[in-house]
Amino acid sequence: MPVKSGKQYIERINSQSVPCWYKGELVTGKRSEHLAFKGLMETQAQLYDMQSDPLLAGKMTYESPVDGKPVGLSFLPPTTVDDLRKRRGAMSVWSNAHHGFLGRSPDYMNTAIMSFYTAADLLNELSPQYAENLRNYYAFCRDNDITLSHAFIQPHASKISGQMDATEDAIAAKVVERTEDGLIITGAFMMATQGATCDEILVYPSPSPAPFDDENPFAFAFAIPNDLPGITLVCRDTYASESRFNFPLSSRYEEMDNLVIFDHVLVPHDRIFFAGNEEMSSRLFSGSNFHIHAGHQVLCRYIAKTEFILGTLQLLTDTLDLASEAHVVEKTARVLAGLESLKSLAIAAEAGAIPDGRGFILPAPQPLMAANILYPKLYPEMIEIIQLMASSGMIMVPQEEEFKTDAATHLDIYLRGTDMTAQQRTSLFRLIWELGAGSFGGRQTQFERFFFGNSITVSNRLYSTYSGVDTYRQLVSHFLANTHR
Amino acid sequence: MPVKSGKQYIERINSQSVPCWYKGELVTGKRSEHLAFKGLMETQAQLYDMQSDPLLAGKMTYESPVDGKPVGLSFLPPTTVDDLRKRRGAMSVWSNAHHGFLGRSPDYMNTAIMSFYTAADLLNELSPQYAENLRNYYAFCRDNDITLSHAFIQPHASKISGQMDATEDAIAAKVVERTEDGLIITGAFMMATQGATCDEILVYPSPSPAPFDDENPFAFAFAIPNDLPGITLVCRDTYASESRFNFPLSSRYEEMDNLVIFDHVLVPHDRIFFAGNEEMSSRLFSGSNFHIHAGHQVLCRYIAKTEFILGTLQLLTDTLDLASEAHVVEKTARVLAGLESLKSLAIAAEAGAIPDGRGFILPAPQPLMAANILYPKLYPEMIEIIQLMASSGMIMVPQEEEFKTDAATHLDIYLRGTDMTAQQRTSLFRLIWELGAGSFGGRQTQFERFFFGNSITVSNRLYSTYSGVDTYRQLVSHFLANTHR
Amino acid sequence: MPVKSGKQYIERINSQSVPCWYKGELVTGKRSEHLAFKGLMETQAQLYDMQSDPLLAGKMTYESPVDGKPVGLSFLPPTTVDDLRKRRGAMSVWSNAHHGFLGRSPDYMNTAIMSFYTAADLLNELSPQYAENLRNYYAFCRDNDITLSHAFIQPHASKISGQMDATEDAIAAKVVERTEDGLIITGAFMMATQGATCDEILVYPSPSPAPFDDENPFAFAFAIPNDLPGITLVCRDTYASESRFNFPLSSRYEEMDNLVIFDHVLVPHDRIFFAGNEEMSSRLFSGSNFHIHAGHQVLCRYIAKTEFILGTLQLLTDTLDLASEAHVVEKTARVLAGLESLKSLAIAAEAGAIPDGRGFILPAPQPLMAANILYPKLYPEMIEIIQLMASSGMIMVPQEEEFKTDAATHLDIYLRGTDMTAQQRTSLFRLIWELGAGSFGGRQTQFERFFFGNSITVSNRLYSTYSGVDTYRQLVSHFLANTHR
Amino acid sequence: MPVKSGKQYIERINSQSVPCWYKGELVTGKRSEHLAFKGLMETQAQLYDMQSDPLLAGKMTYESPVDGKPVGLSFLPPTTVDDLRKRRGAMSVWSNAHHGFLGRSPDYMNTAIMSFYTAADLLNELSPQYAENLRNYYAFCRDNDITLSHAFIQPHASKISGQMDATEDAIAAKVVERTEDGLIITGAFMMATQGATCDEILVYPSPSPAPFDDENPFAFAFAIPNDLPGITLVCRDTYASESRFNFPLSSRYEEMDNLVIFDHVLVPHDRIFFAGNEEMSSRLFSGSNFHIHAGHQVLCRYIAKTEFILGTLQLLTDTLDLASEAHVVEKTARVLAGLESLKSLAIAAEAGAIPDGRGFILPAPQPLMAANILYPKLYPEMIEIIQLMASSGMIMVPQEEEFKTDAATHLDIYLRGTDMTAQQRTSLFRLIWELGAGSFGGRQTQFERFFFGNSITVSNRLYSTYSGVDTYRQLVSHFLANTHR
Repeated sequence: MPVKSGKQYIERINSQSVPCWYKGELVTGKRSEHLAFKGLMETQAQLYDMQSDPLLAGKMTYESPVDGKPVGLSFLPPTTVDDLRKRRGAMSVWSNAHHGFLGRSPDYMNTAIMSFYTAADLLNELSPQYAENLRNYYAFCRDNDITLSHAFIQPHASKISGQMDATEDAIAAKVVERTEDGLIITGAFMMATQGATCDEILVYPSPSPAPFDDENPFAFAFAIPNDLPGITLVCRDTYASESRFNFPLSSRYEEMDNLVIFDHVLVPHDRIFFAGNEEMSSRLFSGSNFHIHAGHQVLCRYIAKTEFILGTLQLLTDTLDLASEAHVVEKTARVLAGLESLKSLAIAAEAGAIPDGRGFILPAPQPLMAANILYPKLYPEMIEIIQLMASSGMIMVPQEEEFKTDAATHLDIYLRGTDMTAQQRTSLFRLIWELGAGSFGGRQTQFERFFFGNSITVSNRLYSTYSGVDTYRQLVSHFLANTHR
Repeated sequence: MPVKSGKQYIERINSQSVPCWYKGELVTGKRSEHLAFKGLMETQAQLYDMQSDPLLAGKMTYESPVDGKPVGLSFLPPTTVDDLRKRRGAMSVWSNAHHGFLGRSPDYMNTAIMSFYTAADLLNELSPQYAENLRNYYAFCRDNDITLSHAFIQPHASKISGQMDATEDAIAAKVVERTEDGLIITGAFMMATQGATCDEILVYPSPSPAPFDDENPFAFAFAIPNDLPGITLVCRDTYASESRFNFPLSSRYEEMDNLVIFDHVLVPHDRIFFAGNEEMSSRLFSGSNFHIHAGHQVLCRYIAKTEFILGTLQLLTDTLDLASEAHVVEKTARVLAGLESLKSLAIAAEAGAIPDGRGFILPAPQPLMAANILYPKLYPEMIEIIQLMASSGMIMVPQEEEFKTDAATHLDIYLRGTDMTAQQRTSLFRLIWELGAGSFGGRQTQFERFFFGNSITVSNRLYSTYSGVDTYRQLVSHFLANTHR
Repeated sequence: MPVKSGKQYIERINSQSVPCWYKGELVTGKRSEHLAFKGLMETQAQLYDMQSDPLLAGKMTYESPVDGKPVGLSFLPPTTVDDLRKRRGAMSVWSNAHHGFLGRSPDYMNTAIMSFYTAADLLNELSPQYAENLRNYYAFCRDNDITLSHAFIQPHASKISGQMDATEDAIAAKVVERTEDGLIITGAFMMATQGATCDEILVYPSPSPAPFDDENPFAFAFAIPNDLPGITLVCRDTYASESRFNFPLSSRYEEMDNLVIFDHVLVPHDRIFFAGNEEMSSRLFSGSNFHIHAGHQVLCRYIAKTEFILGTLQLLTDTLDLASEAHVVEKTARVLAGLESLKSLAIAAEAGAIPDGRGFILPAPQPLMAANILYPKLYPEMIEIIQLMASSGMIMVPQEEEFKTDAATHLDIYLRGTDMTAQQRTSLFRLIWELGAGSFGGRQTQFERFFFGNSITVSNRLYSTYSGVDTYRQLVSHFLANTHR
Repeated sequence: MPVKSGKQYIERINSQSVPCWYKGELVTGKRSEHLAFKGLMETQAQLYDMQSDPLLAGKMTYESPVDGKPVGLSFLPPTTVDDLRKRRGAMSVWSNAHHGFLGRSPDYMNTAIMSFYTAADLLNELSPQYAENLRNYYAFCRDNDITLSHAFIQPHASKISGQMDATEDAIAAKVVERTEDGLIITGAFMMATQGATCDEILVYPSPSPAPFDDENPFAFAFAIPNDLPGITLVCRDTYASESRFNFPLSSRYEEMDNLVIFDHVLVPHDRIFFAGNEEMSSRLFSGSNFHIHAGHQVLCRYIAKTEFILGTLQLLTDTLDLASEAHVVEKTARVLAGLESLKSLAIAAEAGAIPDGRGFILPAPQPLMAANILYPKLYPEMIEIIQLMASSGMIMVPQEEEFKTDAATHLDIYLRGTDMTAQQRTSLFRLIWELGAGSFGGRQTQFERFFFGNSITVSNRLYSTYSGVDTYRQLVSHFLANTHR
């Protein structure tokens, strides 16, 4: 089966049966009709449909090596710079469609599983079966256009001192039993985004501080359907609302986050990529160049989102007649300079692509890592710019229903903007409110800040690529050595 | 009638009949039972009850000059430094009760009307009747513990060029007719906070750019019951929810903002403080020292809010075991230094009090204006600190209902914190989410940023108090003049 | 005559006779032996010699269209993307040689005169002779490897109100007489950097606010030898010192700034590029794409300078054993992310080159303008990082002479660093002191901040390139228009 | 002998004979005539003379308990709030005289030795003799108006790993021998400011990481004349110049920093305050409340310096006609808000004074520690404001000698400012250049940033005073506990 349609995407999810708690109640009925999932599923269905759209298919797909049927380009393991450009083309089509607000649009996890696939050889060392499992799983995802979620952050409780000491009592996710059929896993993961609206979950815990031994119960990676027995999902409250006018962003892009609980879940052997080896956990991760391949996808998203915010700023400037204010010029130019930087980093990442040593090609890591350092600062800064420009006007914004009341004739007069009707202006300010003060925007800001880890982690990633580079040190040493003529 | 009880406060509001639109429907039934007003009214009723609480009454009231009955201390026109201290005492009791989250706790507008009262003499110039109206109105508010709202920001549309040119078509609020019974007013005001839960509204538009003439239809100030014929209120969507666990802040402190529409409202002559004179609009405002008296109240609120955020940070630090991290020490110390500054500015404002030239005393303006410059930066900075410390953990926070489901036993294990049960920790993170990512917090940040105007306006207020001060210029000129020995 | 040698460069300057005041005395004798000019001239001579270095000549020169002799690549008017790359190659060789500390290395003004040349056609409108003059002058500079300075900022006094009103009394530079031999010019220019160590000065005042008329005496551009009768130069104090150990930067890179006074200077007709037409002043400037061509050169300089600072930071980190401190990782990563951005912007500027409509090619303006917005913030931030990391250690730094005293044995022990001798470490800290606290560094910071104008001016440049771009506005308008399903 | 005169101050220093290396040469001759010390000594002499000035003596001195003769108020151990006010009065007179630019004006070390004196009792535990030594030394300083320097920072080399391991080889300052006459000390200290222009040096190394034992050779504190045999001073290069016009700040306020080398210096027993006990090193330091008493002095300095910078900004605004620019209003208001905060913190520190438990009174620690957190950020921010406002105009500033040349008539025209002659304006810009770009200003910025330690250290000081405070934690815990009605 090749790329799936939006309809297929929805049907598969609706047919799942995992227990999923929302505000004290089990989600029953079709997920695609539940407020917490509806808008996102509609948006995502549109994304999937684009892959079969005759006008876009050429840009969005390639032929599966298995049967030649069209599969999503974000699954393509790049071997040439042109592959990287094609991948960016496809990923940008999606990013432009969701304006960068989906952190987990399908290309993200497609890229993730592709990146692990490129490093499958590493697993041979532990067992050729593991390598085979990973390759098969990648092909399965690609050829069935599987929608994946990702579970990796463990609850803070798993780190509370004392609780790590005894393996028995450890809260961290672990193998509690090994059976003929597979491993029995117990534990929990915070923040599996779209956990309730995916087909499968990739589980790959961050390395544990547990003692290093051959049968380390905390070290593993696997992927399974998200509705195996023993799995329970818990939702946070949704930020979504029905009305697209009132909640233009959350009504389309609200991605539910889930706490995923594993209570003696049996993971079949053929779905295990490795187990018991702490060192492999790190090696596979870094060997897959996950942050680099994914960083390429993320940069497409950054660019689309920045463009959307730029357009919002421009409309706000227009309707408030601010174009000639010096501080508005400076603030907007800050956004423009950010946008130019992001676009340039993407060009440079492709222009500087390097072989990964296993037959694939890698975008230049450093421009991508630089983007991961810049954007967690740029995004909140852009939101602050919107807040400063919109000032208190972004708070007292009525809802669309008000325009159908007796007060409407007044609103039509008092709420109009320069070159905008009152409804248009209100619609713009609903958007600005969602970005700059609403709950959806609050999560987006937090999400961008911590997307690839906290500031130290992200800094370290770039820093370490320079740690072996002596060019600049030597340049200054040489300069200083010449201080005597 | 002396200070009112919480019950009286609620009854008065419930008995009002102004058309108030919420999400396309007229609010009917008791406001105190409507989700959009309920929590706030309950909180505010508690504040009013404190004035009659035997343990607090002495600190919260003084004797009305009319009949010796206890009236609220925030109505007291200060004539001594001790009066300032008493005022601060009473205002702090309230601020500590609502932790600074109510921008319009009763003392704010009580102080406002008191400040205008201290400048009533200025109105004699136009007409002794105006001065008398203002004095009477102040006494009426004080002796009946009137809950006031404030309407002053006009819609942006009133400034769109072209529309100001002809008085006839002007969108800005204006006198459209003068009758024997009073003035007929048409126009609209954004952001009358608590407009739907007050007794009366003080209307005092910001000075208009209209031509200066004796019968300027845009210049006036008056106060009226908020349910006179011709008045319509429009609400934004509420951020409040029922559950105190899930929404600890908005369930108590959500103050609805209203668009207030005047459509040919008759304002009786005895409620008009001046009309037709643009210059008086500015003179009464600055002569009343509104920003200084109100700044004193606001500073009490800043301090209480900062203490609450500090406590939140400390609990977060405890439960995440972060006390020994250098960046946490630095961030917390930033909050502490801010808190110490605010407290010191309050002490200095009272220590440096000056006569206002009309028999009253004024806290030193400059420390208060400094606080109004510092807090709009400090508050967002503190919220950012919370966001940076809580990281992604503040997003995936379940609701209280989840603790009553089958998943509860898992949550009890996986969501616990250091020295906190899972429910306690979740409760803390709900608070942090509301402060740092939810809609309620989004409005708070925006509100603090623009409370007394934008950055330029607030800066100008302090700057202008120094513009006549040559001390420092001369000190440097003198220093430079000594550059030849 | 083709590219000149360092020796020729020095001889030409030494043979000049313009009155030049330094600390109350006329500079007499060879400029190359005067402390204020010596280090710079030595450095600059090395740059000129590189053009004839057999190993570098191919990368630094091209054949003059006049006689096929090698002339400097920075004079090349680019017509292909490859030309842009070649230009960057040559400019980077020089930038790497002076590590970006020379704001006026020869390629800067070479590029400037080249850019004006590309727009010479515009002058035909006023007079074919002007166009011819400009073309001839460009060829003269190219074929004689002329060292140019640039005078354009007028004294603040020229703007003091009242003094602009009457042309007669105006302080701004102006034509005071027109004679058969040329124009007689009187006025002054601040900040002609390297004014005392150039062959010629290009004079092109910023547009004046003077009334627009055909014989506007304030509008002109010309180039002349810097020692015509009537010219006087005034120096600021030098920051340079003899010792390369003690003052590693200023002993090499201190570029003297000059106030250039014109007192009835006769500018010959064939050196005038236009005169009397205010509008042409703006049109030639923007038509020449000066900021874009020069921006390309400047970006080479930014990159070299950032690399030098990075190396300095790395050595500092090494010698203070700070590599494992989280804040050092974050700070260094900030520099790395900046460096990656600058490099990417250069790649993108070339990848996106566009025709200029007159047969030449232009690097993409927007990445270059973005760099001009980013660097004035990045540079001071990098210096602050150095200050924060070096802390008080960068203050108490002895001089090289101390290592020859009786105290030397003590210094050898007490001043050593990790993997560095006391002399090496001291040498590094002298560099850090010059960058972060000395006068040379103080000027560099100020220079980078204001290189292409203040923040508003530089922001406006990028902002205006987007002002006609509706793509993003429409994208958001379209998004909002879809808010009703 | 009571307070000394400026003349006595100079004579004492001129009579000293310690080997002091400056740029490879021993300083011989009178220090008061050497460029590196001259301006500072002249300024400091003026400060000392103020104590005997009949108009100021009452404000600057109190009666010595020994003989009733007038001694400096900064030596007064405060026992009442009024004492604190008197101390501030005297310290402010000096701060206003040197505009806060002297980090080591005499009151700083006078206060330091006073603070150690208040904790002398602690030393009884080790030996009553130590306590007696400290009390005697304090009285000696007070009654002889001793000018003290302070040595406490050890070279970085003392921390390089490996070198700490063996006591024998340790680079850190240590007791190398104990004799009948005293202790023999070897080691070095960085940054003894004014080390070459003091009478005595207080040596009190920061606690060493050495093993804790009773005869710890690294733990001690003592005070000695700065010219005992075995002491050598090494200077950095001076930033001072002769001309007050050209270098208005450094010609008066340049305080030389010294590296102080101890090579087998014999410290007499009666000058030792403790030795051999690492724990006492910390206890005496914190018990003396050094940072609090000194913080009170430092705050006087902060206020005077901020006022001077404010005046400079005002003059700059005037001469550049910038008063109406919004960004100038905002920037200046930032300085004003800082100044108001500092003044308020001083008022609050005194208003909240507390007993120290040993019969003395202590200014409230927290406002002072808050000031120590705020100023290291405020000062560089103010300097940046000056840089941003003065822009490139602060670079091309001629020297006073230029006004005596043939170019003077031109300068008089071209360099004048609004309401300023060219000389006055140039004089102002020399000051601005020294503050914002010169070496003197570079040291000042670094000095203020690290005055009381780096950001973590200073933050920790305030943080730790709150660590036992549960008020705010409990307030929020209580709030959360009420989330169920």
